[in-house]
Amino acid sequence: MSNIPGYTHGTSSVPRSPVSLTDFEQMKASVLFGEEDVKYLRMSHDIVKGRVEAILDVWYGFVGSQPHLLASFSGKTDGKPLGDYLGLVRRRFGQWILDTSRAQYDQAWLDYQHEIGLRHHRAKKNKTDGAPSTDLVPFRDLFALIFPVTFTLRPFLAEQGHSAEDVEKMSAAWLKSCLLQVTLWAHPYVKDGDF
Amino acid sequence: MSNIPGYTHGTSSVPRSPVSLTDFEQMKASVLFGEEDVKYLRMSHDIVKGRVEAILDVWYGFVGSQPHLLASFSGKTDGKPLGDYLGLVRRRFGQWILDTSRAQYDQAWLDYQHEIGLRHHRAKKNKTDGAPSTDLVPFRDLFALIFPVTFTLRPFLAEQGHSAEDVEKMSAAWLKSCLLQVTLWAHPYVKDGDF
Ligand code: HEM
Ligand code: HEM
Repeated sequence: MSNIPGYTHGTSSVPRSPVSLTDFEQMKASVLFGEEDVKYLRMSHDIVKGRVEAILDVWYGFVGSQPHLLASFSGKTDGKPLGDYLGLVRRRFGQWILDTSRAQYDQAWLDYQHEIGLRHHRAKKNKTDGAPSTDLVPFRDLFALIFPVTFTLRPFLAEQGHSAEDVEKMSAAWLKSCLLQVTLWAHPYVKDGDF
Repeated sequence: MSNIPGYTHGTSSVPRSPVSLTDFEQMKASVLFGEEDVKYLRMSHDIVKGRVEAILDVWYGFVGSQPHLLASFSGKTDGKPLGDYLGLVRRRFGQWILDTSRAQYDQAWLDYQHEIGLRHHRAKKNKTDGAPSTDLVPFRDLFALIFPVTFTLRPFLAEQGHSAEDVEKMSAAWLKSCLLQVTLWAHPYVKDGDF
């Protein structure tokens, strides 16, 4: 379907998520995620779909400015940033903006969240792009990045003249979605039986 | 110093955190936490210190309304909510509101964050209060709860007539602090070498 290298959402190469849709329903309740959030994510979709590259410029700028973050996109031995790797991941990151805001959080989506987790973890980092980079995105930064990602998204959500209330609700829906997604991604990092 | 049962912040019974203050500085950079956030947390301190019980009523009401959350405060065998356990943890939770807003994030505080993590994890859950409850607070809900906690705090931050900008910044500082703290708490859940 897609011609983004390594973007395998909805294909048979993605393993089944260890988290069931029933578990996920409970997780949504814990974060107060409901139908209203789906509605506001889809409202944001119409805004972000034309601004993907500009949003990525901001996010990549942030990661690039922090050596301890850039390390995950750098050569394992020489520590130099890997332009090809950064570029290939960037295309999938752009697709992620669209998928998050489309909010079609079904079984295929759940499965792909687990795949994204594996790709951050030593289980599968670098494999998709054959990148000679570090073995692991450290757990310690995974959830921290939710703040800069959602905070810097806000001005984009506001730039088409939506009411302050709509912007606030789109932003909250993004925050909840990120908390849910990064929790799903953390599964490979968590000890057996503790998730 | 304190007469809250089981609140051992700053005492020799708290083990050293496996996360160093240097690591923590990098984590702060990842979440964009800086001196301004310390300032706004302390501004919130003057507000929340007189409202601890009212805030706890809201948070406990939320946990009490969700069976899968209340389970962590219930009997391991009969599944009935444990009033004593809920009450004892509540006092330490109240102190946590004060400590978070005091924002004295030094070595003693870092060590106590690890202790709080152990107390959610099977390593040490129930031990402090001798509670006959479930073995583990599941990882899947830890970060999710950050949303309801910070979202329901907001009206309290606004009730003393601070400007919209001050309320916004206090709220953002709380969100960042919670992302940092829950990440520290997750350490016992994460596989060796993956943190
Ligand atoms: C809010 C937190 C984060 C979000 C939303 C996010 C998002 C993403 C997305 C969408 C992808 C592409 C997934 C795919 O292959 O389809 C990705 C990959 C990647 N991310 Fe993250 N990420 C987060 C945290 C981090 C952090 C803290 C780092 C550390 C610098 C990081 C480093 C990477 C790397 C190195 C890859 C490529 C993994 C591979 O080899 O396939 N991410 N991320
Ligand atoms: C934002 C997320 C959370 C925050 C801020 C938070 C805060 C706290 C605090 C401050 C304490 C007392 C620590 C002490 O002993 O000094 C505590 C203990 C506890 N929390 Fe959480 N918590 C969070 C997530 C959760 C979740 C999702 C559950 C599941 C229902 C949970 C269940 C418990 C339990 C059972 C204890 C008592 C642990 C023991 O036996 O000592 N917490 N929490």
